[in-house]
Amino acid sequence: MCQLLGMNANTPTDLVFSFTGFARRAEEHKDGFGIAFFEGAGARLFVDAQSASVSPVAQMVRSYPIRSGHVIAHIRKATQGEVRLENTHPFVRELWGRYWVFAHNGNLVDFHPVLHGAFRPVGATDSERAFCWLMQELAKAHARMPAVPELTATLAELVPRVARHGTFNFMLSQGDALWAHCSTKLHYVERRHPFGHARLQDEDMSVDFATVTTPDDRVAVVVTEPLTQDERWTSMQPGELKVFVDGRAVD
Amino acid sequence: MCQLLGMNANTPTDLVFSFTGFARRAEEHKDGFGIAFFEGAGARLFVDAQSASVSPVAQMVRSYPIRSGHVIAHIRKATQGEVRLENTHPFVRELWGRYWVFAHNGNLVDFHPVLHGAFRPVGATDSERAFCWLMQELAKAHARMPAVPELTATLAELVPRVARHGTFNFMLSQGDALWAHCSTKLHYVERRHPFGHARLQDEDMSVDFATVTTPDDRVAVVVTEPLTQDERWTSMQPGELKVFVDGRAVD
Repeated sequence: MCQLLGMNANTPTDLVFSFTGFARRAEEHKDGFGIAFFEGAGARLFVDAQSASVSPVAQMVRSYPIRSGHVIAHIRKATQGEVRLENTHPFVRELWGRYWVFAHNGNLVDFHPVLHGAFRPVGATDSERAFCWLMQELAKAHARMPAVPELTATLAELVPRVARHGTFNFMLSQGDALWAHCSTKLHYVERRHPFGHARLQDEDMSVDFATVTTPDDRVAVVVTEPLTQDERWTSMQPGELKVFVDGRAVD
Repeated sequence: MCQLLGMNANTPTDLVFSFTGFARRAEEHKDGFGIAFFEGAGARLFVDAQSASVSPVAQMVRSYPIRSGHVIAHIRKATQGEVRLENTHPFVRELWGRYWVFAHNGNLVDFHPVLHGAFRPVGATDSERAFCWLMQELAKAHARMPAVPELTATLAELVPRVARHGTFNFMLSQGDALWAHCSTKLHYVERRHPFGHARLQDEDMSVDFATVTTPDDRVAVVVTEPLTQDERWTSMQPGELKVFVDGRAVD
């Protein structure tokens, strides 16, 4: 199984601390990694078919504090599709003049939707097929970009049609919101004032968030397995679709 | 004006030498840079709104020999659109299940085509508008990916409709071929056996290609201004559309 990491913040925030812990897990998930950062409407995508534990691209991401309000990262253990760059998450498409970023953890069985629209997979993964289908159906449902609650309502109708084919933990963002769907396992934490101290589960590294934040900052981090000790992580329920805006979960 | 660099090779080749010379020019073109590498059908895109002369991302590209058959790079001096990530070339879209990469040098005046299809600009540049229009019209002209000569014929009909709005030097690739259109200035060199020695124009650095190639290798490099001394660069003519496949110009 792969692992997912997402971040949503109300002010551009660097992910060096969380990505460092997350990338440690790449030793067991060595079939590539990818990370996408939104900066305004623009997105940077760094992908590598090498493991995040050795990739020079991952090394750069760990050492270069790119500040972003919306991040999705993925480390891959291949289940479907060869270890090739075009099978590496996250995937990016443009819809309604915005970039959409998607990463998936899980395995979909017998999922071969009709893709008659403008979104076709480049690689051979079930994940990219699911993303293309979601994009196609969103494009059918709305002529232009709707507000976040409407998008959430449409996704809530679409997602179960994919999820019944297997395990469909995913993260999706268009740079305004982060959607996280839990099929089997996802956890999130909301960091806000007063900020505390956290220690990474996977590495001997800790941070005092109070020293790197202002009282107005809010950051939500969503991940397959909790990244830190000393913080209260909420376990998402199977079938739950959660949307994060400005660093907090909204209903 | 911006500067463009493209490479097309019959075997995955690293671009460290050429990119080093090209990135030197970023001191005068400091409004961002981007570079896209195809690896099979997959594409890696590195973009940064910082200058290539200081960007940690450009530093990584210079030191990490990513081997690719098709590369498009761009250093930007903004004419239209703010210095923002979403205005940074190259741009990427998916069409017919393949990624398409586009970068433009020049300025288009009064170019506001009707974009009714599946391709919309995310940023505010004339360049991305032109790319979206080309993608839309290619999608209308062909139901699925045609062979390279057919694509070239369609592009040859479409490109003058954009080029009459101003300066439209561009490079385009879908990972099988590299198209280069010259409006005012583009040069190319075809490197093949017997490989010689070349010295960068912009930096005290030279390479003996014979030591890093095999006799079967063929590499074409297309660039705004010749990168090396000691090599024979061909100057493209205004209005010329050239396509490169397997490291050579094809008619």
